[in-house]
Amino acid sequence: MKKTLLVLATLLLPAAAFADEGMWTFDHFPSEKVEKKYGFKPTQEWLDHVRLSSVRLAEGCSGSFVSEDGLVMTNHHCAHSCIEQLSTAQKDYVAAGFSAATFADEVKCPEIEVNQLVAIKDVTADLGKATAGKTGEAFGAAQRAEMTKLENACAGGDADLRCEVVTLYHGGQYHLYKYRRFQDVRLVFAPEFAIAFFGGDPDNFMFPRYDLDVSFLRVYQDGKPAKIKDHFAWSTNGARDGELTFVSGHPGATSRLMTVSALEYQRDVAEPERIFYLAELRGMLREFMNRGPEQARVANATLFYVENSYKALRGRLTTLQDKDFMKKKVADESALRAKIAADPAKAKVYGGAWDAIAAAMQDQRRLRKMFGYVEGGRGFSSRLFGVARELVRGAAERPLPNDKRLREYADANLPAVEQELFSAAPVYDDFEIARFSFSLLKLREELGADHPFVKKAFGPKSPEELAAELVKGTKLKDVAVRKALWQGGQAAIDASNDPMILFAKLVDADARAIRKEFEDKVESVVDKNNELVARAQFAAYGAGGYPDATFTLRLSYGAVRGYVEDDGRQIAPFTNFAGAFDRATGREPFALPKSWFDAKPKLDLATPFDFVTDNDIIGGNSGSPMINQKAEVVGLIFDGNIQSLGGDFWFDEKQNRAVAVDSRALLTALDKIYGAKRIADEIRPK
Amino acid sequence: MKKTLLVLATLLLPAAAFADEGMWTFDHFPSEKVEKKYGFKPTQEWLDHVRLSSVRLAEGCSGSFVSEDGLVMTNHHCAHSCIEQLSTAQKDYVAAGFSAATFADEVKCPEIEVNQLVAIKDVTADLGKATAGKTGEAFGAAQRAEMTKLENACAGGDADLRCEVVTLYHGGQYHLYKYRRFQDVRLVFAPEFAIAFFGGDPDNFMFPRYDLDVSFLRVYQDGKPAKIKDHFAWSTNGARDGELTFVSGHPGATSRLMTVSALEYQRDVAEPERIFYLAELRGMLREFMNRGPEQARVANATLFYVENSYKALRGRLTTLQDKDFMKKKVADESALRAKIAADPAKAKVYGGAWDAIAAAMQDQRRLRKMFGYVEGGRGFSSRLFGVARELVRGAAERPLPNDKRLREYADANLPAVEQELFSAAPVYDDFEIARFSFSLLKLREELGADHPFVKKAFGPKSPEELAAELVKGTKLKDVAVRKALWQGGQAAIDASNDPMILFAKLVDADARAIRKEFEDKVESVVDKNNELVARAQFAAYGAGGYPDATFTLRLSYGAVRGYVEDDGRQIAPFTNFAGAFDRATGREPFALPKSWFDAKPKLDLATPFDFVTDNDIIGGNSGSPMINQKAEVVGLIFDGNIQSLGGDFWFDEKQNRAVAVDSRALLTALDKIYGAKRIADEIRPK
Repeated sequence: MKKTLLVLATLLLPAAAFADEGMWTFDHFPSEKVEKKYGFKPTQEWLDHVRLSSVRLAEGCSGSFVSEDGLVMTNHHCAHSCIEQLSTAQKDYVAAGFSAATFADEVKCPEIEVNQLVAIKDVTADLGKATAGKTGEAFGAAQRAEMTKLENACAGGDADLRCEVVTLYHGGQYHLYKYRRFQDVRLVFAPEFAIAFFGGDPDNFMFPRYDLDVSFLRVYQDGKPAKIKDHFAWSTNGARDGELTFVSGHPGATSRLMTVSALEYQRDVAEPERIFYLAELRGMLREFMNRGPEQARVANATLFYVENSYKALRGRLTTLQDKDFMKKKVADESALRAKIAADPAKAKVYGGAWDAIAAAMQDQRRLRKMFGYVEGGRGFSSRLFGVARELVRGAAERPLPNDKRLREYADANLPAVEQELFSAAPVYDDFEIARFSFSLLKLREELGADHPFVKKAFGPKSPEELAAELVKGTKLKDVAVRKALWQGGQAAIDASNDPMILFAKLVDADARAIRKEFEDKVESVVDKNNELVARAQFAAYGAGGYPDATFTLRLSYGAVRGYVEDDGRQIAPFTNFAGAFDRATGREPFALPKSWFDAKPKLDLATPFDFVTDNDIIGGNSGSPMINQKAEVVGLIFDGNIQSLGGDFWFDEKQNRAVAVDSRALLTALDKIYGAKRIADEIRPK
Repeated sequence: MKKTLLVLATLLLPAAAFADEGMWTFDHFPSEKVEKKYGFKPTQEWLDHVRLSSVRLAEGCSGSFVSEDGLVMTNHHCAHSCIEQLSTAQKDYVAAGFSAATFADEVKCPEIEVNQLVAIKDVTADLGKATAGKTGEAFGAAQRAEMTKLENACAGGDADLRCEVVTLYHGGQYHLYKYRRFQDVRLVFAPEFAIAFFGGDPDNFMFPRYDLDVSFLRVYQDGKPAKIKDHFAWSTNGARDGELTFVSGHPGATSRLMTVSALEYQRDVAEPERIFYLAELRGMLREFMNRGPEQARVANATLFYVENSYKALRGRLTTLQDKDFMKKKVADESALRAKIAADPAKAKVYGGAWDAIAAAMQDQRRLRKMFGYVEGGRGFSSRLFGVARELVRGAAERPLPNDKRLREYADANLPAVEQELFSAAPVYDDFEIARFSFSLLKLREELGADHPFVKKAFGPKSPEELAAELVKGTKLKDVAVRKALWQGGQAAIDASNDPMILFAKLVDADARAIRKEFEDKVESVVDKNNELVARAQFAAYGAGGYPDATFTLRLSYGAVRGYVEDDGRQIAPFTNFAGAFDRATGREPFALPKSWFDAKPKLDLATPFDFVTDNDIIGGNSGSPMINQKAEVVGLIFDGNIQSLGGDFWFDEKQNRAVAVDSRALLTALDKIYGAKRIADEIRPK
């Protein structure tokens, strides 16, 4: 017990220097601090209610329950893939929007999984025991095995539970998160893409903004809407300028404790290379969409993802290249290292961490291309290849003892694998070939035409030829074929002559080998030494912080607040409907949909539309509810401004802002623009 | 006279630390140093002969005279645009190659201009007098006016002469270069693109290599092959490993004296942004080429240029990010600044240069997007827009006194403007629209949709809509229309309602304004202070160097020499024909043409094909002759290896290599593969 407390206490981020910085865990929320500043103290009951009303979309978003009948609110862009998968050339719900008139009209999303966090258990001691005295490869293996064991015991074979060991404070703390898992998730409502993403890429990460980036889903259980006790009530008043706001959601990842050598690696290698890749892919996608309207429809969701990532990464790179930023990081690190070095006992424990990470960065430089392209997916950007790899690996892994498998094939994770594997989401040959060709071309380029792996994978073939041959030749588009291969196990895989299966087998040994080398020489080393850095930080400066984000539930507090741009422009915190009409040009991406012009006479154009707060959020928070002290929804997070993109590495409250749709805009749109009375009534305060 | 000598002597690069570093001017060639190391001392006569036998392709390449009948040897990739412009969907000379059986079959290239350097005159004193006591805007204006005056006097209205004031040693020295200008340049021979660029982008900047990157052109005068006294003889023996080699050509630009703040600007801003742009353009182009074989043909030369630039810039960025490189640059600069600071007299003259450049870099950060997109061409990537801008500006500028015009419209430069303007090179609507749309999209993205210039240029229109409207609506595809507008001057422009002319007029004031601001606040400041840095360098360390490259004729010496890769592989200096057959897969870009397989039985497969030397070259040297002590052609420069790409900023002789086609491969190919006996006989030693 003492040890746990110690570990807990030692692994905190540096005392948050800025006002409302922090993505707090629910079991460590600074309620007193909030009370001191805002006069409101969240109680345990309040926190539990908020936690249970919040959900995670397993593929990378946040959401919230907003009715007792399992209605889930999230962003349009979080359900974009589903909406596209349910569309056809004849019925394009992305373009036209979707509104189910009755429960019976709600349609299942092929690949969305919703998770509700029902329990948290501290398992730091278990992990500590399992890895005691181990380093490097042995450390990583023992840790992965223990995690799998704990997760398996927690789920107990119940596919409706999803258990995950969560690493907090860079390994200073391990928690076992138990989620209730919903895989029957249906689309209820989505507006037109044109208003969900009004302003498109040019306005993305910008403010003022005029987006109705919302979709409603519903979780079902046993074929009926699931009954949900904890859910958020709705505020018809929204939030005032300066009002305290909370965001409860799943920030994906921050790196605020990252050492200087790792930051330099990000700045000089990782981020530029990702941007180069995305830029080229973006050029390809936009031109692919010129092939025709059907290609434009099919590739739209991918383009959104790529452009969003491209812009976000450029923002991050700007921060990494900022001299003041790096100077501060270097100064902080030097000061901490000096303090540690001055105390022989501390130096012995923590002193080697920074150099160990720097050495791992050298290994990462060396291994990154092979890892990223052959194992990490950059080289095989094909849905059908992904299916083939799942089948090949699943056949090999499932017969192994649970804790000896690649972690994603542990029993606790198989439901998620199966949902994706058996998804009926359509695959379009021409788009599949274009993407696969692109990624194979980049793989050959980055590894070099003479690389033995390239020679093995390509033979004499060109990237385009190989992609076309595999995509056209495979039978894996047929879900029944996938099921038969999955159920048939290794024997079925051995007997298969499907070209995509054969290709996945051909490259698998190399992919597994580089994964193992990367995990042993980079990941394990970085994980272990980041933990030491986090502990050194506490040993030197004491407690008072929050763990880096890890796509687990966090609560951020802040207030509605405008800001001042570098050029002196004052940015007011709210926009309104009138501004959207003013900005409309009739041309994509500034074309307001017809529904809006039809409804215009009925609308109060002064209705608040989007607004900004200084809550500390990051990618993964998309779809998070913005709530007030009464735990009522006052908004829906859908973006951060461009100045927030450095939030991965530090929080600069001066300009870093979260961007949300106002709850008043949401309800008004359902009522007056979309005639979605059923949904509006379901969320409206009774 | 004394002043000239002083200035000359003071403005030298740091003493070349490495063996054969240096891109030497012909009037300052270190013959003694060559003699000391290699036992051969070039005489003035030898140097004159080599200079007069060398040519420049005005659009950015090098070449050489190889017969008395004006036969010019250069790279295939230097004539690629011409070959594409002469091709049609029915007769694709890029794919099939071209070989003129007689003089009468030689076809004029629409846009190639060949320059032979006939005289050099030192005009440093003239420039010094004109700019004495001036700074900033006034300095730049006076300098440009004096240059124009000198050039005009030199050409004396003779369109067959091209005179240019050349800035050497960053303004420490100004020379007036007088070129004989050839605008009637005809295509004589080109092999298939598949062997000219065998290995394509994957092998670009790589070695070992198997490319026959050659084309032969011929300069004509009065409709007949021009008689050329000085031309290179041919070596049928090539060069031996270790043999002394010279490269006479036109390296485009190096930045070996660049200050640290400017290097950082390149590393953090300029280079990444150029790569992002090129990466996206590349993705677009490759996918555009998937529209069909005709689109693939039409866009091929542009793709080559884009991929080549992309790879080259990534190589440069790697050097800029190299910690050892930057550490050395910082140390060198600190040492120099300390030496200068220690001497009050020197400090007064030179001490402020570094900070002035750093301040200009801040201005460049601020101005770069507007300058690059609105004036610099990134935003209007359209041949027809380029024509419209030439017409609009030409009408406004030509009535002005010669020395008050934008420099490119000075009398001395008008022949080049007219050649391009009246070029009959085809324009393809779909490709033109695709490129223009792309660049307009990037312009809107980088300046922001709310930028006043964007609002003015686009109105409510989307980039695609605007591009399509302008390209489809303009009559400027018709050369006769261009001629009428050019000859009609301002009145014709004022009366024109051609949409592209109207658009060029709409954006011209903003473009001129940002150009002026950029020239005054960035270019002039950097030029002036780079000169001070160069002089400070001499004041501190003395003489012994060569000027940075400026696309003027230079002579480099070195030797045939392999190298060792970082992973320990020993790279031999020569490849041979057998290697090309070994590398062939039958798929682009590793598909050897049929002509090679047909000829294979007749070939000695041990014939040397490509080879490397440690000559110091850079972009712009493409097409340079590689010669031996007897001034015989032993090879044809066409590339540098990947390690040479940092050569912009320093010369690292360990791995930096120039890549050439062997003279034996060239003659054998003409004789035995292409049956081009007429050409082979013309260059073969008599």
